[in-house]
Order: sequence, then structure tokens, then C-alpha cells
Amino acid sequence: MSRTAERRDRLRATASERGLDAVLVTNLLNVRYLTGFTGSNGALLLRSDPSRAHPDLFGTDGRYTTQAGTQVPDVELLVDRGTVAALAREAVRGGAGRIGYESHEVTVDGLGQLERVLADAAAGATVPELVSVRRAVEALRAVKDAEEVESLRRACAVADLALAELAGEGALRPGRTELQVGRELDARMLALGAEAPSFETIVAAGANSAIPHHRPDGTELRPGDLLKLDFGATVDGYHSDMTRTVVLGHAADWQREVYELVAAAQAAGRAALAVGADVVAVDAASRDVIAAAGHADHFTHGLGHGVGLEIHEAPGIGPLGAGTLAAGMAVTVEPGVYLPGHGGVRIEDTLVVTADAPELLTLTSKELLVL
Amino acid sequence: MSRTAERRDRLRATASERGLDAVLVTNLLNVRYLTGFTGSNGALLLRSDPSRAHPDLFGTDGRYTTQAGTQVPDVELLVDRGTVAALAREAVRGGAGRIGYESHEVTVDGLGQLERVLADAAAGATVPELVSVRRAVEALRAVKDAEEVESLRRACAVADLALAELAGEGALRPGRTELQVGRELDARMLALGAEAPSFETIVAAGANSAIPHHRPDGTELRPGDLLKLDFGATVDGYHSDMTRTVVLGHAADWQREVYELVAAAQAAGRAALAVGADVVAVDAASRDVIAAAGHADHFTHGLGHGVGLEIHEAPGIGPLGAGTLAAGMAVTVEPGVYLPGHGGVRIEDTLVVTADAPELLTLTSKELLVL
Repeated sequence: MSRTAERRDRLRATASERGLDAVLVTNLLNVRYLTGFTGSNGALLLRSDPSRAHPDLFGTDGRYTTQAGTQVPDVELLVDRGTVAALAREAVRGGAGRIGYESHEVTVDGLGQLERVLADAAAGATVPELVSVRRAVEALRAVKDAEEVESLRRACAVADLALAELAGEGALRPGRTELQVGRELDARMLALGAEAPSFETIVAAGANSAIPHHRPDGTELRPGDLLKLDFGATVDGYHSDMTRTVVLGHAADWQREVYELVAAAQAAGRAALAVGADVVAVDAASRDVIAAAGHADHFTHGLGHGVGLEIHEAPGIGPLGAGTLAAGMAVTVEPGVYLPGHGGVRIEDTLVVTADAPELLTLTSKELLVL
Repeated sequence: MSRTAERRDRLRATASERGLDAVLVTNLLNVRYLTGFTGSNGALLLRSDPSRAHPDLFGTDGRYTTQAGTQVPDVELLVDRGTVAALAREAVRGGAGRIGYESHEVTVDGLGQLERVLADAAAGATVPELVSVRRAVEALRAVKDAEEVESLRRACAVADLALAELAGEGALRPGRTELQVGRELDARMLALGAEAPSFETIVAAGANSAIPHHRPDGTELRPGDLLKLDFGATVDGYHSDMTRTVVLGHAADWQREVYELVAAAQAAGRAALAVGADVVAVDAASRDVIAAAGHADHFTHGLGHGVGLEIHEAPGIGPLGAGTLAAGMAVTVEPGVYLPGHGGVRIEDTLVVTADAPELLTLTSKELLVL
């Protein structure tokens, strides 16, 4: 049984538990997760009780007929320009009375269209009920299978190698601009096999490093600057995420102190990643280290987040999070201390929660690198 | 009065006509259009009848306080982590009875949250009614003002220049791969000042050129290949879009014939761009040329689309479109003939509809280029 078939069966179990006859999956990443399809238009009609007459159906339009045959060989194909409407009609034809849909994804107008299609298709008979499944597929996606972890491992390796090459070539040196460094990092990741950067690469030098999500600009790197690099590579659709902060030239005492503090907080956060751990407690394990040093107000964001087909996905690890960690969850641990006008340090890894110690996927050293 | 203030007043007129007291704009590109804000979280509460006590409000979160002050100096700022909810509460405080919202953008869950916020804020008094304004802002956006046309002009110039440089350097030659050419084109556009490519650049060689939206891969360019390049640059958030098809080495008779046919169809489409022209008729003007040559089945997509803050926006120009052209609309004209297994030709320009002849923004030659 393929990975995607296993995933569909997990969703099928959820659907049955909730008393649904079918689920209409329209979030494109969720469709990819459940079928393997990577095109720009696709949807899945999953039946709680599929049969030869009424099997699961993968829907797309004519542009993707060939691609669907290759990527989704084990789900029956329906080709229709009005993909979602066509799948909804098939659900009615299969006798579905309660149909799950993704209410966090479907717009108000989209729901109205769906209701009209169902009413038309029912043709006087009872119109099926649409029931929100909310983030049911996202909940499944939070726990990665072996194939997904392997993709994340490769995505992280690309980012590690790209940074190692750039640092080795002396590309991170005074006189260059943030934008130059960012574009070279991106180009290097692509050359190493990334499909794309995971997000808009952050390169922040000097005082800019105190801005948590600074957008790289023409700012020149200067001797003595903290240089914060937050970047990642996408491989097989999976996103790596890593932040390293280095010093250009000589590290001042305050820079070294902040760095050691953040490194200690990051280690504490990593150590707290365990099966069953509450996400608020994981955040606190790291945050407490920073607070104890008097920098509570300088750590202004959550500790981390899940990564996978999205750069930010479940679970969120922060003071306002909810839930516990499970084996197979891939998450970031990324505390930071930001001193406005001076500079900031963030250290971030991507890791996988396991029954033992978490598996570290981003392998670049976390010693303070003085370039 | 700033451009964005003029745009807000146009929306205000629409809101008044529809009997709305306020409009809650949440589509981020629509917010950008109406305020100039380029961050990742922002929303606008526009009042039909703003006052000192209850002015228009631009909402964002604490990350963007500084940026909002710079980019949106002429709208009162509201900083709140729960941006949309905070604006909705302000609408209630201002006594709004009917509030417009973007039902094509707001999800079913989002609407539910909004309804709860309004009910809470009304605190026992009459809860305001939420009324869909559908694509009211998109309809305004279809007609570009002088500032927008200037941004599109620069975006098109970047794409023109990037292609000219690459062709001049001999980068489009047998032995190189589609992916290499695509990445060089992207890098060149960035170096020339683009913020990003407009979309995933299409480079399709040989038989791949018959696939309308081929994704560049390791396919090597070979002598005698048709090479189709569909790409664009983003400048100030505005997208250019251009396709050129060249021949590597000697052009075979069939290639030349198909090329001349598509060029004639494209010229006919451009000539049909006039104020008041029906979009279906514009499509037909070009499509008829291809059909008359017996290739109707080989032109499988619409003739063109609006471009602006999105790469695809109103108006759609195709057999299933609706509406007429107006002065200031920026559109593409991009017929193609695709012969599966052999090759295809598409020629595409970005133009602005005017009271006279349309203004051509993509200036690269449309003579058959033999490289």
C-alpha cells in the first residue's frame, strides 16, 4: 500500500468516526498529501465506504490528465474543468447524505456554489448536508511518516551545505549587501537541488538583526556586525528552516553574552522536545532561560512551529499554543533575543520528535562563528 | 490627494450606492491597492461617511507599526494582533448597521468568527448585518491609473532587457537545459531590479513547447528546436507577462508556418483591443485566424487576461469571458498553436487599452528570431 493510500485510510477512519459519508478535500496541499499530486488544480472526494461503483475520486482539469495518471495511479481520475462541482455531483450520485468539507479553506462564495451544485444534483431528493471537518487533514499532516522525514532531511541538508559553501568561500564579508548574500544563498540552494527557497530568505546585518523578520536590503555588512541568516530549502515540497547568527570580525562582549544566552535557551528548548510534552511547557523551558537573564521582553515571538508541506504548520509551540507533541512531529526551535537599535541573535533548528532524543535535521554548528 | 486616497474614494462611492455603512477589506492585495501597505498582515475599515470620531482605519499588528506609518500616512492606524476582529469592533462602535465584506476571500470559518465578534461587540443591541461586496475592489483594480501603468511599464522593460541580454550573450543555445535558461532569466531580472519573477518562468524546448504550461526541467536544448519562453518581472508589486518563441539554428517550414500564423492571430487580437470591445469578440478576433487555418483544436486556452498586482486578474479575455474593455485596462494577448509531440508557438504581449491604439508595454521584437 502506498504512503498516500495509508494517509487516505487515516482520513477515512476520521470521517467514519464523525458519521460522514464522504469528505471533499480542496486545500491543494492537503490534496497533495493524500494523493501525491503536485499540480495547481486538484481535489479529492474520499468516501467512508468506497466501492467499485463509487470509489474515491481524484479530480483535476484537462491540463493535468497525464500528470494525474503518473502521480495518482491508485485513485480513480475524474477530469472536469469545474473540478469541485463535478466531485460534489459524484458524491450525490453515490448517495452521500453527510459530506465533510474544509471550512477553513472554502470561501463563503465557494460554499454557496457548492450548496447550489448539491441542490441541483439532488434534483428534488434530500440535499446532502455539508459538515465542516476543519483541519482534519492538517492534524494528520502534523505527524510525519518516514518518507516525509526523509524529504525534510534532504531539505535541511541542502540548506546546511549552501551555507557551508558560502561561508567557506568568504561570501559573508564586510562590504557585501544583505541582498547580495540572500540571493547567493538562494541560488546556491537551487544549484544544490532545492525546488525553491522555503520562504523569503532573511539576511539581517548589524542593527537590522534586532528586527525579527527583517527583509534584506542594500545594507552593507560591516566589521563587528552580528549577521543573522534565516533560510531554508524546499525539497519534494517539504520545507527546511534554520537560523544561524554569526559575527563578522571580532565579537564584542555583549554579542558573545547574548549569543551564549540564546544558545542555552535553544538547547533547553530542544531538550524539552519529548513525546507527550505540552507545547506551552516546551516554549517555557526555553523562554525561562531568557527571562532569568532579564531579557523576557526581548524575546517577542513563539519558540517554534511545525514544518512540512508548509513552512508554518501544526503544531505551534508558544505561550498561546495548545496540545502535546507526538513522535514524528517535525518542528523548529528558534528562540531569539533582540536589542532594538543594537542587534539580535536567533538560533533555529528543525528537528523531529521521537520516543528518544529528538532527531536534529539541521546540522550546521551552533558554536558562535566568527567570520 | 494621494493615488490611494482616490482609490478609497472610488470604493466609498460604491459602498454608498449599495447602502453600506462600511466595508471591511481583507484581501491583502486589495488592502495594498487601497493603502499602499506591502506587509503580510493588514486590513482596511472604510466608512461610507468617515468622521473625526470614526475615520477610516488601517489595521495591522505590532510587527508593522513603523512600516504602516511610512506607507499609510493618511489613514488612521489601529495596531492589534487580532486585526480583523479589532476593525469589526470599531465598525460597531461607529454605529455601522450594514458592513460590506469580501465573500470571495473570507472563508466559512472566517465569517463565523466575524459574526461572533460583531454579536459580542453589539452587546445586546442590534447586530450589524454583513453584506457581500464580492469583487468590488478587483473591479476597480481592473482599470489602472497612471502610477500603476508606470509600474507595469518598468516591469515589462526589465523582462525585455533580461531576454535581450541573455540572447545577446548566446545563453540560449543547444546543449544548455531548460532549467539553466530559466534560472538565468530569473537571476537577470532580479539583477535588473525586479522584486521577483512574475510566476514560475516557463522554458520549453522542442516537443515540450507543445505543452502550454511546461515546467522547465533537465531537457537539453537541441538544434532545430522551437524554444518557448514565458516569463515576467514584478516591479512595485506589478507583474509583466511576455512570451516569445524562438528557433535554435535553422527554422523548418512547418515551424515558420505555425509561427507566422500565431503572429497574425496575435496582431489581430491586439488590433481588437478597443474601449467598449466585448472580451468574447476580442478573443474571437484572434481565434478566428487560427481556426481559419484549421488549427482551432490546437489553441486550447483563452486569449488573455488582466495583469496588475496579480498575474491573472480581471478582465478575462476568452470564449467564456464577460464584459467589455475600458481605457486603462492592462491585459495580455497570447494566442498559441500547440502540436502535441512536435512543438508549439505562443506569442504574448502586455498592453494597456486606450482611447486610441493600445499601448504596447513588452517591446521585444515579434519577428521570428533564429538563434
